[in-house]
Amino acid sequence: MILTVTLNPAWDVTYRVPRLTPHGSHRIGSMLQRPGGKGLNVARVLHALGQPVLATGLAGGATGAMVEAAFDVPNAFVGIAGETRRTVTIVDSDATIFNEPGPEVRLDEWSAFQESFAARAAEATVVVLSGSLPPGLPEDAYAVLTRLARTAGARVLVDADGAALRAAATACPDLLKPNAAEFAAANLPREVDQSLERAPGALVVSRGADGMIAVTPEGCFEAVPHEVVAGNPTGAGDAAAAALAVALRDRLEWPRALGEAVALSAAAVAAPAAGEFDPDVLRRHRRAPKVRETPCPW
Amino acid sequence: MILTVTLNPAWDVTYRVPRLTPHGSHRIGSMLQRPGGKGLNVARVLHALGQPVLATGLAGGATGAMVEAAFDVPNAFVGIAGETRRTVTIVDSDATIFNEPGPEVRLDEWSAFQESFAARAAEATVVVLSGSLPPGLPEDAYAVLTRLARTAGARVLVDADGAALRAAATACPDLLKPNAAEFAAANLPREVDQSLERAPGALVVSRGADGMIAVTPEGCFEAVPHEVVAGNPTGAGDAAAAALAVALRDRLEWPRALGEAVALSAAAVAAPAAGEFDPDVLRRHRRAPKVRETPCPW
Repeated sequence: MILTVTLNPAWDVTYRVPRLTPHGSHRIGSMLQRPGGKGLNVARVLHALGQPVLATGLAGGATGAMVEAAFDVPNAFVGIAGETRRTVTIVDSDATIFNEPGPEVRLDEWSAFQESFAARAAEATVVVLSGSLPPGLPEDAYAVLTRLARTAGARVLVDADGAALRAAATACPDLLKPNAAEFAAANLPREVDQSLERAPGALVVSRGADGMIAVTPEGCFEAVPHEVVAGNPTGAGDAAAAALAVALRDRLEWPRALGEAVALSAAAVAAPAAGEFDPDVLRRHRRAPKVRETPCPW
Repeated sequence: MILTVTLNPAWDVTYRVPRLTPHGSHRIGSMLQRPGGKGLNVARVLHALGQPVLATGLAGGATGAMVEAAFDVPNAFVGIAGETRRTVTIVDSDATIFNEPGPEVRLDEWSAFQESFAARAAEATVVVLSGSLPPGLPEDAYAVLTRLARTAGARVLVDADGAALRAAATACPDLLKPNAAEFAAANLPREVDQSLERAPGALVVSRGADGMIAVTPEGCFEAVPHEVVAGNPTGAGDAAAAALAVALRDRLEWPRALGEAVALSAAAVAAPAAGEFDPDVLRRHRRAPKVRETPCPW
């Protein structure tokens, strides 16, 4: 079983308006709402692929209850007193996004989550830690969970940014998967170098339409998509994380793992919503993966 | 007891941002959320004045549950299957507003509400019908409720706009209270004329800082605020409705009723949130009401 962790899930609300007029009043004609958060998207993709998955994380309040009720993937969230955040996106010709900060998580709640997580990680082959941390959690939360998961015998993939990513790198996860902007902003190389020395860890950096590069103990590889896919890039990184989690579980060779990640990522771009993918695009991209070994960047 | 009716309540969410940037991503620093809807504001003002009040209306789904849980005035909502609407307001230098349409109310739910309403109206002296109608309700919903309430022996105040206001006028409520824009848009005079012939009905039109005019069987009156008050005009009309409901209950003379309505309205402008009022401003404005008889407009 692959265990996905979403510590700061969201209730995503999307309003479609003809035109966003600052300081105007807008009557919403069409709206969409669904559970959101990177870890939930990873879980959705795995579930749609038919892979055994369990989604865990933190959820609280009426909004947390809405997330749990509407999320149609096997899940076991740990309850918190705070209210799960919402995101509001206004779509006219493009998206205008409003992100609530998320609930303040108490120390006892974080302790309870770690207990629950350690037990579930012991039953998992791979653990995927994705997305932002809610207020109140220490910035090394993913490092703490990585160590717990490794101790419990699971392999660990971390898809995070900023301080959470830097901290996670020091706990030697099996795979770090930031995107190019997150990788650059986190100023990682030092921690990653150390990580690569101490554990069989690898780094995959996703670069949108330019594909992905992997820095691994077996060498460095580059994968580019078979063709450029038009669509919605939100969730493409989560689809890549799902493919890489399966690859970690099945101990695939890195070139095959990267080929799968690029194909599933392209198939996610072709689907309308994050957490979904287009099976035809997936089939087409799987046929001819363009993966090659490259000189390592460091 | 004064019974307030809110058929389309809302969960009002306000995000404060330094600057609203269309097609940008905004991290919300400070947010406010509370139950909203004109009838709820009227009930809040009455409750704060110490007047016996019961708030009823329709509420459904997780958002309806949030409204009921957070609304601190005696209330008895009737449940519906649909999800109570939200409003999202983005505040930078001014407010940008997004209004969800509200739940589709089914005919059997509307029937159940009428049953419940008739029983509660029989225990009420005054019924206040305020605000928009949710999708699915007939546009004469306020006319139907007005007749039920009058039959049950209650006096009726209607604060609505558009088709709902026009329809309500034909059911001879004791008082119609649109604001000037709503009054002009509804093209009311014909219906109101008929109403005045057939019942002891009156019309009060609120005109913001210019005060109010009343067209009543005892003559026409004009009230202007004692002084101009700076602040938040949202909810001022609801405070006026609360004052006029008390006046109807106590059968105050129109000049006194109007004086109270203008004073409470000014006190509401001076308070930060709809449904609240500033007691000092109320006291000051009550001391010297500026009400005079005027020629009737028709």
